[in-house]
Amino acid sequence: MASYDILGLGNAVVDVIAPTDDDFLVANNLHKGTMQLIDEARAEKLYAAMGQTTIVSGGSAANTIIGAAHLGCRTAFIGKVKADPLGDIFAHDIRSARVSFTSLPAKDGAASARCLVLVTPDGQRTMNTFLGACQNLTPEDVDPSLVASSEIIYLEGYLWDPPEAKRAFLKASDLARAAGKRVALSLSDAFCVDRYRDEFLDLIRDRRIDILFANESELHSLYQTADFETALELLREEDILAVVTRSEKGSIIVTREETQAVHAFPVETVIDTTGAGDLFAAGFLTGLVKNMGLPECARLGALAAAEIIQHYGARPQADLKALAIENGLL
Amino acid sequence: MASYDILGLGNAVVDVIAPTDDDFLVANNLHKGTMQLIDEARAEKLYAAMGQTTIVSGGSAANTIIGAAHLGCRTAFIGKVKADPLGDIFAHDIRSARVSFTSLPAKDGAASARCLVLVTPDGQRTMNTFLGACQNLTPEDVDPSLVASSEIIYLEGYLWDPPEAKRAFLKASDLARAAGKRVALSLSDAFCVDRYRDEFLDLIRDRRIDILFANESELHSLYQTADFETALELLREEDILAVVTRSEKGSIIVTREETQAVHAFPVETVIDTTGAGDLFAAGFLTGLVKNMGLPECARLGALAAAEIIQHYGARPQADLKALAIENGLL
Repeated sequence: MASYDILGLGNAVVDVIAPTDDDFLVANNLHKGTMQLIDEARAEKLYAAMGQTTIVSGGSAANTIIGAAHLGCRTAFIGKVKADPLGDIFAHDIRSARVSFTSLPAKDGAASARCLVLVTPDGQRTMNTFLGACQNLTPEDVDPSLVASSEIIYLEGYLWDPPEAKRAFLKASDLARAAGKRVALSLSDAFCVDRYRDEFLDLIRDRRIDILFANESELHSLYQTADFETALELLREEDILAVVTRSEKGSIIVTREETQAVHAFPVETVIDTTGAGDLFAAGFLTGLVKNMGLPECARLGALAAAEIIQHYGARPQADLKALAIENGLL
Repeated sequence: MASYDILGLGNAVVDVIAPTDDDFLVANNLHKGTMQLIDEARAEKLYAAMGQTTIVSGGSAANTIIGAAHLGCRTAFIGKVKADPLGDIFAHDIRSARVSFTSLPAKDGAASARCLVLVTPDGQRTMNTFLGACQNLTPEDVDPSLVASSEIIYLEGYLWDPPEAKRAFLKASDLARAAGKRVALSLSDAFCVDRYRDEFLDLIRDRRIDILFANESELHSLYQTADFETALELLREEDILAVVTRSEKGSIIVTREETQAVHAFPVETVIDTTGAGDLFAAGFLTGLVKNMGLPECARLGALAAAEIIQHYGARPQADLKALAIENGLL
């Protein structure tokens, strides 16, 4: 079997994105900047009310894996779609980035997942996810030899929403640890942390996770504190490699030994922040794969995030590798 | 029945857009900057070879109508989709712009049309259209009362590709003329002009057309001359209202009485020129509807075109009306 730098495991989702305004969010009872799970009926109703859409493959971990592939990593992805139009789009797009994607599509059951993303003029995205076929990702989809032949296993917190996917997550994590590989987790969003706080903390404290990605609000949610310094100190005590992203304020690398702040790349106009955290992780993990210093890893993450927020959708449009070379980061 | 400022008749197409490079065009025998008709098998093969896609509703005349709706015109559209996922996307998107779209979707037959758009780093698009359900647009889809209640009927040259759609075009044009309404035609592309040159010239000379939109290469193709001045002179002699678009060089308004050059709006970075001509027509026709002077119509067209080439896809992302007001054009 081929070997991979990074193997991602996540919900296979296609994003259906539309610009909107704050009034629309209020009228539809949507909480700005968060991800909310919806059923198919609600998905159809919301879609009917949305404006002109742009459809781009997404999924948090999938975005990260594709970003890493663009940056030159050998990558693979495990996720579940149905054999339907949105599933075909997801599979086409991830493979077009030369990511190995061999998960079999479901022949029946729920339709492929979609995330209705509403983007307000401030560049914030409000996400409404119908998980559909993602509910059918099971431990059987996790191939032990694929895990064992990958240096880093990247998991998204959102996997805890479909119950079977959570078991797949744990299987992948256990296999990776047993094979001496590193496991990275993205906390996904503050409400996701709120749903699974204790379980995520257990993952960290049971040493099932080596690398943790969180943004500020996820961190606050994890430790249930409004004080950033307190949260950072609690994070330091976990004794893992953690990275806290802070949008235009850059990121903070936290280990037992030290706390380092790293700048963001300034961006003229933010169009859509969808995928900023995902692409940060892509850059950071690529840096780790290439044995770069931690601050350089964070800079590469910031560069990838800066590209993604300058257009709609969470898949790179510019040549990320060339951009990194231009900036002396690869 | 409600009355409309502009009624569009065109192929109902969803664009599947991917960035590419010149090598890909050469390897796949594609002629840069043109639209080529393909069958379903070829569409599937080309899609499989394409990179990560962005899916946005398109269709030349549909883009124009949506642009005009954004600029505040009351608009309607006639076009044929199948009741399938791409057809649903097209219908959702055009209605979300408050365009009246009442054409019934086909229940069987060919799938909804798609245009595989390959965008090279120079911002040029190379289009590969599978017409599918558009082949099923017939004269029966043209409601006489809808035509009679619309001030301007806008037709795309591409309608001459599906034989039945051509008959629908002629029916709409005849009805409009009989009702004392104006008929506008966009020549669509130079190869389309090459396919139907004599018929397009007959349309003009038989007074079935009042307003003609062409870009430089379409104009050269129409009169089979490489000399721009010669082509302009021949156009002048047609004695209709014609507008020749010239990308960053602006546009030229040609009537029997005078020839006026109008500047383009400068753009910092061209991302994707898809829809530039369509949106120019949207602005120009909106100007006519609002009884603006011809140079102001062309400036409004240039403004709408400038917005569209700064992002992927041929549907506006900015608030075109606000942009026009900001620039003193509405």
